[in-house]
Amino acid sequence: MRAPDELLALVEDALAEVAFSPVLAGLTEAMGYAVTGGGKRIRPVVCLATAEAAGGRAEDALPAAVALELVHTFSLVHDDLPSMDDDDERRGRPSVHVAHGEGVALLAGDALLVEGMRFGLSYDRPEPARELFEATLGMIGGQFLDVTGADVSLADLHRLKTGRLFAAAVGLGLWTADVPAVEQAPWRAFGEELGVLFQAIDDVIDGDGYAAELGEDGAREVAAAAAHRAHERLDAIAADTSVLGALVDGLAVRTA
Amino acid sequence: MRAPDELLALVEDALAEVAFSPVLAGLTEAMGYAVTGGGKRIRPVVCLATAEAAGGRAEDALPAAVALELVHTFSLVHDDLPSMDDDDERRGRPSVHVAHGEGVALLAGDALLVEGMRFGLSYDRPEPARELFEATLGMIGGQFLDVTGADVSLADLHRLKTGRLFAAAVGLGLWTADVPAVEQAPWRAFGEELGVLFQAIDDVIDGDGYAAELGEDGAREVAAAAAHRAHERLDAIAADTSVLGALVDGLAVRTA
Repeated sequence: MRAPDELLALVEDALAEVAFSPVLAGLTEAMGYAVTGGGKRIRPVVCLATAEAAGGRAEDALPAAVALELVHTFSLVHDDLPSMDDDDERRGRPSVHVAHGEGVALLAGDALLVEGMRFGLSYDRPEPARELFEATLGMIGGQFLDVTGADVSLADLHRLKTGRLFAAAVGLGLWTADVPAVEQAPWRAFGEELGVLFQAIDDVIDGDGYAAELGEDGAREVAAAAAHRAHERLDAIAADTSVLGALVDGLAVRTA
Repeated sequence: MRAPDELLALVEDALAEVAFSPVLAGLTEAMGYAVTGGGKRIRPVVCLATAEAAGGRAEDALPAAVALELVHTFSLVHDDLPSMDDDDERRGRPSVHVAHGEGVALLAGDALLVEGMRFGLSYDRPEPARELFEATLGMIGGQFLDVTGADVSLADLHRLKTGRLFAAAVGLGLWTADVPAVEQAPWRAFGEELGVLFQAIDDVIDGDGYAAELGEDGAREVAAAAAHRAHERLDAIAADTSVLGALVDGLAVRTA
């Protein structure tokens, strides 16, 4: 059972070794720029930690973890575009479209999405790819609700936009550890809470979402309640979930 | 062995029955707008015709054919965006970003790509999905060369941008007809020529590409030579390839 830092090192090594298709030629420069931008790698680490807690090997979950991070990165590159959030900066650096041009950023996002999906095909069983695809569609659906200002609650919006990929991080960890579908429910309930916790703290840091709607204290209450429920979900699982518990505590106090 | 028109009807029926993920909510409107815009469905028809010529059933190739058309449609939606070709019209109608807004067009393209990939997962064997993914990356790589004005020949550019998906149309037909990899080469050589033929005539119609570089007559010569070679490739295959031959002849004389 490896600590979060050790799992993070596994993720970083795997991401550094990703060989994008040679047919993408110079586009891989913008893709690499996006992937190596200092992300926290929370989703892939959750995936590996879930696999280990469920009795699997983190190494077997690495392709799924890489897939999650590439799909997440695709979503950031496209979200930052002028026609979406129009963010010129990401993690303290120029966003991809500022550094490489808007057309190249569009294509880099497209290619990251396909490469992420390809990593989801690394398994003999079809469930990991299906889970990844459905989570990605949920994320895009949430982004659509966000960009069109649809009349949905913040909780429903986040459940799609952030929650689906967090739930998939747990789900992919379970599939790669060969946990049967009928035994997955309590783990997945944990994943849902983890997504809420992540998003509420994210909103506190960015001053939007829950923080804009409920104030910073209100957003912190949402996060604390989600962290509490996440621990309850873990307590209901008959396995050593201490690393996942440490991830909850880490997410609850993060400031960046 | 069904005629091109009958295969086209199969494709149209299958596309009309595609149920996009409900999680995409209102985004499916823009996606449907893009898919039902009066496309010629050449790639999916080639896929079905190849499957039948190779001894398979067109019905078994339908998910792959739908996948090809969705991926092709994704590429059109993103190519038309202001940061790419900035085309306000597509097939005589406002392009997706004009009709639905730029952010929605971006997301609709993303979602069409993922849904297309999902259809590629419809088979028990992994090769169709892999073929589709690799062809899609090749297409994106070609688009990158195009948008950045890279110093490559028109032939090399088209081989990626158009040729890869045409070759995949043939390849997916072969996989769904259970043609072993070692027997696929002559069919694939035919697919390459079909892509060149399609693109050269497309350039004549649009007055760009080969037509801009070689004049209309020069572009028609490129097309005629590709059509000739395509027929030669078919003649070398010990199967009834008459429908594929008819598709070659149809592509050679198309005017829209």
